Amino acid sequence: MSKQNAISPTRAENYPEWYQQVIKAADMAENSPVRGCMVIKPWGYGVWELIQQGLDKMIKDTGHENAYFPLLIPVSFLAKEAAHIEGFAKECAVVTHHRLEADGEGGLRPAGLLEEPYVIRPTSETIIGYSYSKWVQSYRDLPILINQWANVMRWEMRTRMFLRTTEFLWQEGHTVHATKQEAEAETLKMLDVYENFARNYLALPVIKGMKTADERFPGAVDTYCIEAMMQDGKALQAATSHFLGQNFAKASEIKFTDEAGQIQIAWTTSWGAATRLVGGLIMVHSDDDGLVLPPRVAPKQVVILPIYKTPEEQSQVFAACERLEKDLRAKEIRVLFDKRDMRGGEKTWAHIKKGVPVRVEIGPKDLAKNQIVVARRDKVHTEKQFLTPEAFLEQIGSLLEDMQTGLLAKAEAFRDAHTCEINTQAEFEAYFEKDSGFALCHWNEAAIGHELLAKHKVTPRCIPLAGPKEPGKCLFTGQPSTQRIIFAKAY
Amino acid sequence: MSKQNAISPTRAENYPEWYQQVIKAADMAENSPVRGCMVIKPWGYGVWELIQQGLDKMIKDTGHENAYFPLLIPVSFLAKEAAHIEGFAKECAVVTHHRLEADGEGGLRPAGLLEEPYVIRPTSETIIGYSYSKWVQSYRDLPILINQWANVMRWEMRTRMFLRTTEFLWQEGHTVHATKQEAEAETLKMLDVYENFARNYLALPVIKGMKTADERFPGAVDTYCIEAMMQDGKALQAATSHFLGQNFAKASEIKFTDEAGQIQIAWTTSWGAATRLVGGLIMVHSDDDGLVLPPRVAPKQVVILPIYKTPEEQSQVFAACERLEKDLRAKEIRVLFDKRDMRGGEKTWAHIKKGVPVRVEIGPKDLAKNQIVVARRDKVHTEKQFLTPEAFLEQIGSLLEDMQTGLLAKAEAFRDAHTCEINTQAEFEAYFEKDSGFALCHWNEAAIGHELLAKHKVTPRCIPLAGPKEPGKCLFTGQPSTQRIIFAKAY
Repeated sequence: MSKQNAISPTRAENYPEWYQQVIKAADMAENSPVRGCMVIKPWGYGVWELIQQGLDKMIKDTGHENAYFPLLIPVSFLAKEAAHIEGFAKECAVVTHHRLEADGEGGLRPAGLLEEPYVIRPTSETIIGYSYSKWVQSYRDLPILINQWANVMRWEMRTRMFLRTTEFLWQEGHTVHATKQEAEAETLKMLDVYENFARNYLALPVIKGMKTADERFPGAVDTYCIEAMMQDGKALQAATSHFLGQNFAKASEIKFTDEAGQIQIAWTTSWGAATRLVGGLIMVHSDDDGLVLPPRVAPKQVVILPIYKTPEEQSQVFAACERLEKDLRAKEIRVLFDKRDMRGGEKTWAHIKKGVPVRVEIGPKDLAKNQIVVARRDKVHTEKQFLTPEAFLEQIGSLLEDMQTGLLAKAEAFRDAHTCEINTQAEFEAYFEKDSGFALCHWNEAAIGHELLAKHKVTPRCIPLAGPKEPGKCLFTGQPSTQRIIFAKAY
Repeated sequence: MSKQNAISPTRAENYPEWYQQVIKAADMAENSPVRGCMVIKPWGYGVWELIQQGLDKMIKDTGHENAYFPLLIPVSFLAKEAAHIEGFAKECAVVTHHRLEADGEGGLRPAGLLEEPYVIRPTSETIIGYSYSKWVQSYRDLPILINQWANVMRWEMRTRMFLRTTEFLWQEGHTVHATKQEAEAETLKMLDVYENFARNYLALPVIKGMKTADERFPGAVDTYCIEAMMQDGKALQAATSHFLGQNFAKASEIKFTDEAGQIQIAWTTSWGAATRLVGGLIMVHSDDDGLVLPPRVAPKQVVILPIYKTPEEQSQVFAACERLEKDLRAKEIRVLFDKRDMRGGEKTWAHIKKGVPVRVEIGPKDLAKNQIVVARRDKVHTEKQFLTPEAFLEQIGSLLEDMQTGLLAKAEAFRDAHTCEINTQAEFEAYFEKDSGFALCHWNEAAIGHELLAKHKVTPRCIPLAGPKEPGKCLFTGQPSTQRIIFAKAY
């Protein structure tokens, strides 16, 4: 395996297919017999569990509580908000019956027609809004700050594991506030939570921005997002936070009596992040040998690989491995002692492909020298360090931290290298024909739907919140522009 | 509120209605507009989160990993196992369409008919079995030890919050083994996990047993269960573990090549526990003042209630409360400092009804004496202890532990007091007309479906695993019996 890569094709050869092969080689997920749905296997689900734990803590630390609302939504609820139903009607799984009966030909057919059909939630604004309308009477009942971890379903035409699946797992926050200012502040606060989480857990440098009108969540007044760049230069919307104004409060009749005794319509927000984050992780950090995981979301951070030939060697080596395993566990390092009886090379490569951050080998010669052999997933796989177990235990925390920050820095450098300012339509066309990346262009709302965008499958990704307010002229329309926004191809 | 109880009706007056009122007073859950589905509110969901955390750890410590499989099951999959489809066909939510369209009358109707309908999983043996059939080739691939946390749906006719709802949350373990012995051992191991969890976390004394043939899971060879007794003497099946033999392996074609190179059919198990556990908790421990929670599953274990009149008092009292809050948090006690501006009595009663294990009051007089006032939810609500903050911090761990074991002992004593041996049909009738509880009766399989059982709505709950093998004659048929089994009314 010296020069050849473990994943075929490589990123350069065929990026979309490389992505599928990384998932397969790391045994993270596979397609299922249910259209557009995947099976998330233990290694992939382990990453998701760590994402859940980390993000859940941040959501709670900002004052939110978890709750659970029904999976099914009466069709009439969904229809209450006009833009919302327009956005979701075309891709809903519809439940129409409540039992099965023999069809007389050895099969089964739906029976027990429901009076009103239900859809499986594509998102829960309407069903949660119904509850909130009953919970909120007075300004004293506000704010309501609730989050839900759930599965949702959107009958997407084109699916891709983790990035876009018919069913996916996510969290969706839904909050109610007495004032516009408070709801807007909440929307931006949760955007900050997502940015911090992406940066500190996933090692994803993301850009915080506002969506242009054509890219807004159906029914939202403003949609904010964090956008990440994949290694093919395409953008991935990693999480969104919506200021819903009074649109859903009106549709669901969420009203309250204010301090002056007046009836007011409430202001709501919603915000979500999904298993799509796992897809983003894979696409940003992995290489041609397979998955690379930031240590904070690696289900196992260290794998211990015993090397032995004779039963006597085995018992000595295993004893040393077990000691190290125990010591690492005591330091709250997620460790796997891989005792499987298989060829050493094959076993090592299995863990490289799975992206385990640190591999430790222990053999009889190492025991004699009181050393262990340490290899990092973020270095060339033949690069090894020889350490005493004591030194390793002392260094492992900072080693993982170094790897975590190294991955972030690398992703940040890649993104910056693939971001440029573009000032003419000719440059724009040339750029997106040859390369891909983030193009910062002057822009005016009138450019929405411009033919150049459709031609190159480029979309406005976001109006960066941190971007300088530099006046100019829209690249597409020539009309006045107040700042550059990001254009890119996107997942 | 001296003599009157916070919950009306009381347990003695109307137990089923008391149960609903406890849930309402504790703000745990409420009915939703979706038939038979509930909204789990933050306090109820907080209990479920602690159940998940505790049980998840035990499931992982016994060698299982989590994964996630699709929500939808093709109807043809469900039909593969005859007893299974027989058991679930009558109560399935069926998805038949994948979009909605305008119906021309201002409403929406299902559109995009699916070629094959799906059901929302009522349980996942068949969809998971499909994946396993691809994963298992050789004896080296076994065992497969996987668990899933998920929502499932059964279109039940009569629902009751937490105990029986159309949609519910649960974990379902699904394992594959090379031998019958190994699969049987796994089934019993997980039954032990459930028993330990119920006892140590939920303070529920449960009886481990095997279900009689008529109460088995559809498609199982043997179903094991843990049965708990509620305060009305009725039984609640709190969790089940199924030895599925080769039934599902045959239906899903889970086969493997053994060490001798022969193709073998695998042996499978499944086991589950659900949000129903929350219902069991409520019914076993709560009293006529509301919810009582074992500290290990209490979302907040201590609530701090400030008492003050003037702004100056408030600032001094708040400072003391915040110190205590911080000190408790440092000891990993789940604590709430309730700063809400409301009447003291009302606030105290809110926390009594929510079942917060320990209430601490701090007022200006207490500050002067360097004391805090401590009340326990498992004692009369007027009983108070005066402690220094230091003494309280030292004692809180053992206080919570004492409460946890006290609740278990109380429930165990109640169960034992409501369990008796019954030897004649006349005694049986008299017992279930007047009382309710666990009746230990001799029994032979031929008694299945006996009219006396239907008449009194009594069912065989389980064949206790620990029961003495004492020969006798079946109460119902007079045929030989090898041991007594438990009969009871049940939820």
